[in-house]
Amino acid sequence: LIAERAAALFGSNLLGGKRVIITAGPTREALDPVRYLSNHSSGKMGFALARAAAEAGALTSLIAGPVSLETPPHVTRVNVESARDMLAACQERVAECDIFIACAAVADYRPANIAEQKIKKGGEQAQLELLRNPDIVATIAASEVPPFTVGFAAETQDLLAYARDKLQRKKLDMIVANDVSTKGLGFGSDDNEVTVVWDSGQQVLPRATKLALAQQIIKLIASRVSESS
Amino acid sequence: LIAERAAALFGSNLLGGKRVIITAGPTREALDPVRYLSNHSSGKMGFALARAAAEAGALTSLIAGPVSLETPPHVTRVNVESARDMLAACQERVAECDIFIACAAVADYRPANIAEQKIKKGGEQAQLELLRNPDIVATIAASEVPPFTVGFAAETQDLLAYARDKLQRKKLDMIVANDVSTKGLGFGSDDNEVTVVWDSGQQVLPRATKLALAQQIIKLIASRVSESS
Repeated sequence: LIAERAAALFGSNLLGGKRVIITAGPTREALDPVRYLSNHSSGKMGFALARAAAEAGALTSLIAGPVSLETPPHVTRVNVESARDMLAACQERVAECDIFIACAAVADYRPANIAEQKIKKGGEQAQLELLRNPDIVATIAASEVPPFTVGFAAETQDLLAYARDKLQRKKLDMIVANDVSTKGLGFGSDDNEVTVVWDSGQQVLPRATKLALAQQIIKLIASRVSESS
Repeated sequence: LIAERAAALFGSNLLGGKRVIITAGPTREALDPVRYLSNHSSGKMGFALARAAAEAGALTSLIAGPVSLETPPHVTRVNVESARDMLAACQERVAECDIFIACAAVADYRPANIAEQKIKKGGEQAQLELLRNPDIVATIAASEVPPFTVGFAAETQDLLAYARDKLQRKKLDMIVANDVSTKGLGFGSDDNEVTVVWDSGQQVLPRATKLALAQQIIKLIASRVSESS
């Protein structure tokens, strides 16, 4: 079934000639040479999207945080660590980009100071000063000539309300929302279940492998891009 | 060479019948269901020690933080996430333990509160309240009938001074000290270079694979244990 679907996507050349950038995985925000803040993103969804985009004929770049996954065929991969590295890598390439898919689980905050030496233990309590990281997807959506921009919303409650709010607030073209509190789905899992939201509609994509979902998401993106151009 | 050394260790049955517990890898300290604090420990050194201890005839338990490494042959593995999980797993087993090797890079601090829902972004700055984690190796060394206890010291400066201080302050029997600021060694690498420190002496183990170093460390431990019993 997946092979058929892949062949169908490839055959259809849905994104033929389009330049697609996809971010994937977590970011790591250093406290010092050994410690960091991060999150449980496995990168699987972003890598599946890159595979599906390349299968659909797109010139695909994957900007990946630290994950141990193989690069899909015909995909150009750029490895990054922090949110600021990831933003820089995206901005370098955005002028040449038709579709930007922000699938990475970017750390919202980074330590305000990165110690050059390993920080020695102090008292029983401590405070870590944090600074807001740049909002990568909102920054790209606010470019002079923005690409078709797709965000992700991983939530543990009020999924659709947050997703619609994020769509409007960040001026995105589409949001893929998933509930990370569901056992056996989402972070680290091979399966997922998402709701795709755009200004005039939404579609539930029921539980499936991340690759099958990625192929359906790429199809929805291609359909919205062709309508808006 | 490694095969010979392994055979020599195994043949000698240096730790025959001894019960050894080894901790390995990082710990992860949750902020909420998706975010965590951690560090770059790969677990390779601890896993190499477990392999070497089992080769030397010890009944070996490996208490491992989140790493993707295979369990060495004849080693019992217990997977844990946080420092408190790791301490509990060690304490359950310490009464039956002759040698305790604390190789894990335990997070010194954990977030004071673990949010049940994913924390929403707030302002430009934020503060993360942290609490000191229990000191696993010092807790074990302070047991009523402590095992022969070996600590690790990963430092980026003043390696030996910190190691000797740690040895006395935590009442350890031995410290394995390494400089994590050396490029290409230590965290994530297959090679390392360490200095082993005990009350009456010290020995530099020059650059070698982590397995070769582990075998030398096990030999030093066996020699110190037999002297002290």
